[in-house]
Amino acid sequence: MKTSDLKPDFSKFSCPLPLIHKGQIVLGHGSGGRMTKDLIESIFYRYFDNPYLRKGNDFAEFNNLDQKANMKWVVSTDAHIVKPIFFPGGDIGRLAISGTVNDISVSGGIPKFITASFILEEGLQLRDLEKIAISMSITAKEAGVEIIAGDTKVAEKGSADKVFISTTGIGILNQNTVIRGDQAKAGDSVIISGTIGDHGIAVLAARNELGFRTKVESDVAPLNILIQNVLKQNIEVHVMRDPTRGGVATTLNEIALQSKVTITLDETSMPIKQEVRSACEMLGFDPLYIANEGKVIIISPIIHAEDIIQILQDHPLGKDAKIIGEVSKADSTPRVIMKTKIGGTRIVDMLSGEMLPRIC
Amino acid sequence: MKTSDLKPDFSKFSCPLPLIHKGQIVLGHGSGGRMTKDLIESIFYRYFDNPYLRKGNDFAEFNNLDQKANMKWVVSTDAHIVKPIFFPGGDIGRLAISGTVNDISVSGGIPKFITASFILEEGLQLRDLEKIAISMSITAKEAGVEIIAGDTKVAEKGSADKVFISTTGIGILNQNTVIRGDQAKAGDSVIISGTIGDHGIAVLAARNELGFRTKVESDVAPLNILIQNVLKQNIEVHVMRDPTRGGVATTLNEIALQSKVTITLDETSMPIKQEVRSACEMLGFDPLYIANEGKVIIISPIIHAEDIIQILQDHPLGKDAKIIGEVSKADSTPRVIMKTKIGGTRIVDMLSGEMLPRIC
Repeated sequence: MKTSDLKPDFSKFSCPLPLIHKGQIVLGHGSGGRMTKDLIESIFYRYFDNPYLRKGNDFAEFNNLDQKANMKWVVSTDAHIVKPIFFPGGDIGRLAISGTVNDISVSGGIPKFITASFILEEGLQLRDLEKIAISMSITAKEAGVEIIAGDTKVAEKGSADKVFISTTGIGILNQNTVIRGDQAKAGDSVIISGTIGDHGIAVLAARNELGFRTKVESDVAPLNILIQNVLKQNIEVHVMRDPTRGGVATTLNEIALQSKVTITLDETSMPIKQEVRSACEMLGFDPLYIANEGKVIIISPIIHAEDIIQILQDHPLGKDAKIIGEVSKADSTPRVIMKTKIGGTRIVDMLSGEMLPRIC
Repeated sequence: MKTSDLKPDFSKFSCPLPLIHKGQIVLGHGSGGRMTKDLIESIFYRYFDNPYLRKGNDFAEFNNLDQKANMKWVVSTDAHIVKPIFFPGGDIGRLAISGTVNDISVSGGIPKFITASFILEEGLQLRDLEKIAISMSITAKEAGVEIIAGDTKVAEKGSADKVFISTTGIGILNQNTVIRGDQAKAGDSVIISGTIGDHGIAVLAARNELGFRTKVESDVAPLNILIQNVLKQNIEVHVMRDPTRGGVATTLNEIALQSKVTITLDETSMPIKQEVRSACEMLGFDPLYIANEGKVIIISPIIHAEDIIQILQDHPLGKDAKIIGEVSKADSTPRVIMKTKIGGTRIVDMLSGEMLPRIC
């Protein structure tokens, strides 16, 4: 077979995409919500189809070379395009390490190695790049991971925006660990490790898009030690996810769909900083949809819930941990429901369209 | 310890960077040549310092979990920002898979898994994204790798340029394999698997920057099968590298420096397509500095050279393979020298500054 036989003949392929938005990428495709899901399914799953991707997690697992070993590998990748590159509480470097460390950690895995590829815009201040590298180095040390390979490309001015960083994380995972989006069960409690919406509001504030001042800082942090504190107590954990783009609402909708359950949240127990609540009220945002970069959702049998809260609260990154809801059998459609403060209920849907572009 | 203690205090760090170019990133920092090397050493090596990175290869190795196993893992990462995204002979998707497959392959490793993260510009045609995904899928099948994890972000129009793709490859490598840039030895032959400069000239042509028409197609291709054909014959290979950004000249300079040897090239034996030669002459380019994306340089003891040429030529991707030079002891400074057609010699220096931005 000649290699030219393997080159694509695009005429043979039909276009399966719904011709929405005049067949163009719009910001909503990067929201992390329904449109992102549609894009991934209609293009990437379709052509890259394999059992690793089909699991629909933010990470993939592959076996150790020695099949008898009790550990396997777990890998995850993320592009980071946050704007601005420095914001209260963090920067794109801390975000790039934390985001990938957290994706590995919510699989139950222990992150070990990171690769980082940089796309730099011509004209970027070297001093800024240095600050970002320092921040990545410090965050990597905090998480106990090593940055073992990298790449740097430069795009001409106006073809990129200062710095984009893609990171890939590689970690180890016990063969018997089954912490996945499809494992939530009726009777489980839903726990969040702290206040929601901090990252999104801090980034908006840094862009001067709030129209007022706020003291909110991003929560961006590597969560692997906090998470391992829970797992090393041999506590039964069914699902873990970090509610980043699309916020708690979108993450819980994904879990409800994958596990085919109803998740009922209690509005009164949702931990939200007063500044975040105020900002959301003034802007008409729902904090449930605002991105977090240093929070984890843990879904576990109710008998473990108080133990988990205790362990989380013993660590500075988990001091505001709360039980925020419970899992029950789905009636007909899996969904997320909120019991409101005034005693009603409302459906909490997945984010559709884009609320806050370039948030991570 | 509070986590805030771990946040960077930039005031404590001095800026070690030479304040060239007014302290800004310029296109030359992405050339793959001397300026890229300076940037990596002054920022990334400085702050990410660890033994994996310090080896200075395009890949990093890490041990299997079972230390007694005879295989280890090898990982590599690359950002791809080629402009335009479609060019004669390939596209950014085929490039993103091939580039990473080839980086793993030149370690002597067998690539297994790829992760891909996409940065899309608002307004990108979905049809173009689909074509790219198809091309990635076909190239992955050709190379026998699976795309196991991914991420998609969208930047607002004008903040990126159509599509950027970062790929990370993971492969397996025999514990005893030592194919590295520092292994070239006096008496070795220098082999190239085919014609040089095709990719760079094809991309320039696609940008209409040549000022004339040419039929040159990019050589972009995954080389893992070609390379494994050589290695599975148990032929002693000292160095393998794919001469991408900065071309054959820059790659050989890196090898000469790492191995502390002199490499002498023979101009008459350098395989160059007539169209590439003509284009270079008209534009004043030296084809030795033009990027390749489907070529490998192999440095081996002279007694194996003819066998390697035979094996390479038996595969369509290696049909123009040639012995192009030899390795000798360095006098004082390691360098690359060219014996010219008219019988003289000239020094072939590393690329400094940028010749062709956005070439890969």
